[in-house]
Formats: sequence, structure tokens, C-alpha cells
Amino acid sequence: MIDQFERLPGIGPRTAQRLALHLLRQPEDQIRAFAEALLAARSQVGQCQTCFHLSAEPLCDICRDGTRCDQLLCVVADSRDLLALERTREYKGRYHVLGGLISPMDGIGPDMLQIPSLIQRVDRDGISEVILALTPSVEGDTTSLYLARLLKPFTQVSRIAYGLPVGSELEYADEVTLTRALEGRRAMQ
Amino acid sequence: MIDQFERLPGIGPRTAQRLALHLLRQPEDQIRAFAEALLAARSQVGQCQTCFHLSAEPLCDICRDGTRCDQLLCVVADSRDLLALERTREYKGRYHVLGGLISPMDGIGPDMLQIPSLIQRVDRDGISEVILALTPSVEGDTTSLYLARLLKPFTQVSRIAYGLPVGSELEYADEVTLTRALEGRRAMQ
Repeated sequence: MIDQFERLPGIGPRTAQRLALHLLRQPEDQIRAFAEALLAARSQVGQCQTCFHLSAEPLCDICRDGTRCDQLLCVVADSRDLLALERTREYKGRYHVLGGLISPMDGIGPDMLQIPSLIQRVDRDGISEVILALTPSVEGDTTSLYLARLLKPFTQVSRIAYGLPVGSELEYADEVTLTRALEGRRAMQ
Repeated sequence: MIDQFERLPGIGPRTAQRLALHLLRQPEDQIRAFAEALLAARSQVGQCQTCFHLSAEPLCDICRDGTRCDQLLCVVADSRDLLALERTREYKGRYHVLGGLISPMDGIGPDMLQIPSLIQRVDRDGISEVILALTPSVEGDTTSLYLARLLKPFTQVSRIAYGLPVGSELEYADEVTLTRALEGRRAMQ
């Protein structure tokens, strides 16, 4: 059991031992419930057929939600990014989860991501704006530029802003972020 | 001497003692040079008469530099922010140092900052764009909105971008920053 815990990310030998010993002290039905939850999650959680977010149903909660805006589509690398955007409670459109970023160094090409399904969806569903919400990194930039070129014939393509994070001090910002913040300046309303 | 060092920001009793003991071990002429540098800096460094950046001359290096763009003016809270922007080597216009941010809580009103001189300068020098580079905080936002309203009759006013810092992960960004990044999204070229 200790070995199994140790294989989890961020869990070292000591933590694994502490978790295992804790479980051994629990009543048997609690351990059984834990084991069953693991198996159930593995067998039930799949991908939404439309947006490829994690989902136990063929369509995820967000795709089934009739109150969300159908014209706005936000493209993210994975489900964790989608959940981060949902926490803002500001975005009311749909999502599309790529399943990663284009990364030639790691052998990940466009065909290994949910890009054909994205193009098809934008073309078919009459999306009026695609918002690319990818991390500001080499892979994120590459993927954004690639998608922008592909999607331009179908719809308007925008990208989330890169610049100073809220609550930060200008004097401590790194040069690249400051350069992006200057380039990305916006007219005041 | 230890007491004097301890009054400096970020220096506690132990560091103050270490610095003082180090100086005592130096030859006397070196201590004299240090003391003279302190006095010289205090008596010589003043403010640039045009942009209010720190300067030993009536006009600072940036204001005297004939190769910089005269139509672009970047407004910062203090000289540290100006130096941070200079490190990017991307900005080629002029600066205006406010000397702080509007903060009613701390009793700092617009009249205590270099705002009248800014308006006068924008009006007189035919500035085509003012870039507000203030921190994303309550004070920074208040000052930006105040300046935008004042400057609009004279020139175009823009603001540096707030959003994800370069190299950060979307999933770890706080909600306010993500909201700003979504609001501030830009059309892909």
C-alpha cells in the first residue's frame, strides 16, 4: 500500500507511510468505500463527447447547461484550466479542451490534440468568437498562433490578456511580462 | 553606527551589526569615501524638472536623450517603476513620475502628486499617447481613472495590460487576475 501511495505525484516515502498507517487504523468498511470510489471513478469518468472535459455522462454539465452562451467558445489545454476559469464565475460561454499543447520537443503534434473536433465544432455551431486561454509559454504561443490561423476563416479569434497580475508590484515584474504588458496596452474607456 | 544601519529598510539588528563590524575592519579612507558618497548623493541628487525622475542634473538622462520618441509619454508612480520599464529596453518614449498614487486612506490627494505638471506637459508638448503604467491595485486603478478623465481632452490615453504573467500556469492564477485576463482579451492578428 505504501508503494502505491508513493507513485502519486507530490507524495514521498514519508507521506506515503503516514497515509497508509492512517488507513490501517480505520474501520474496514471505510477502506472498502475508498477502494470502491477509486474503481468507480476510473470506470465512470470519461470525456464529454462535445468539449472533452472530464465527465461521467456522455455530455458534461457545462455542455448540458442551457443557460450558457452558445456563440462564445473558450479553448483551454486541459480540464484543470477549465476549472480555474469556472472559479472566476465571469465566463458564461462554452469550452473546448484540447488535451494538451503543441510541443514538437515532446513529440506532441496538432493531430494528437482535439483540434480537428474544434474546427468542426466552430464551423458547425456558428461560434461568433473563440477565446484562446492558453498559458503564456512557448507551447502556448505556438498552439495559439496555429489555432488562430486555422480558425480565422470561420470566426473571430481572441486571446486572453498577458500582463501584470492583479496585486503585483510593477517594480518586481520580470522584463518579459512588462514588455507584454506594454505591447498589450489598451485604450482607456 | 549599528543604530544608523538598523534604520534602513530590510536591515535588522544582526545585519546592522555585521555591516558595522565589517566597516570597522576597513582602512579609514574607505570609510571616509563611503561617508562622502552618502553626503554627495544627498546634496546632488534631485528631481528632473521635466519628468521628476531622480537626477543629478536639472534634466535627467532620459529627458536629455534626443533619440527618444517625444509623442509617447509613460506615467509611473515612482522612479523604481521607471527603472523597471527601462530594463525591458522596449519602451522608447518619455516618462512622467507622479511621486505616488492617489490614496484617500493615506491622505494623498491628486494635488500632492505631479499631476498639474503632467497635464501642462501633455497640453504643451503635443503628446499623442499617454500610457498609464500604474500597479493593478485600488490606488493604481483610482489614479488611472482620474488621470484618464483629466487627459482625455488632450490626447489618447491607454493603460498597460493586466493578465497572466509570462511563464505562469493558468490553473494557478487567482480569480481576479483571470477575470482581468478574460476581460482584456485581444483579437489575434
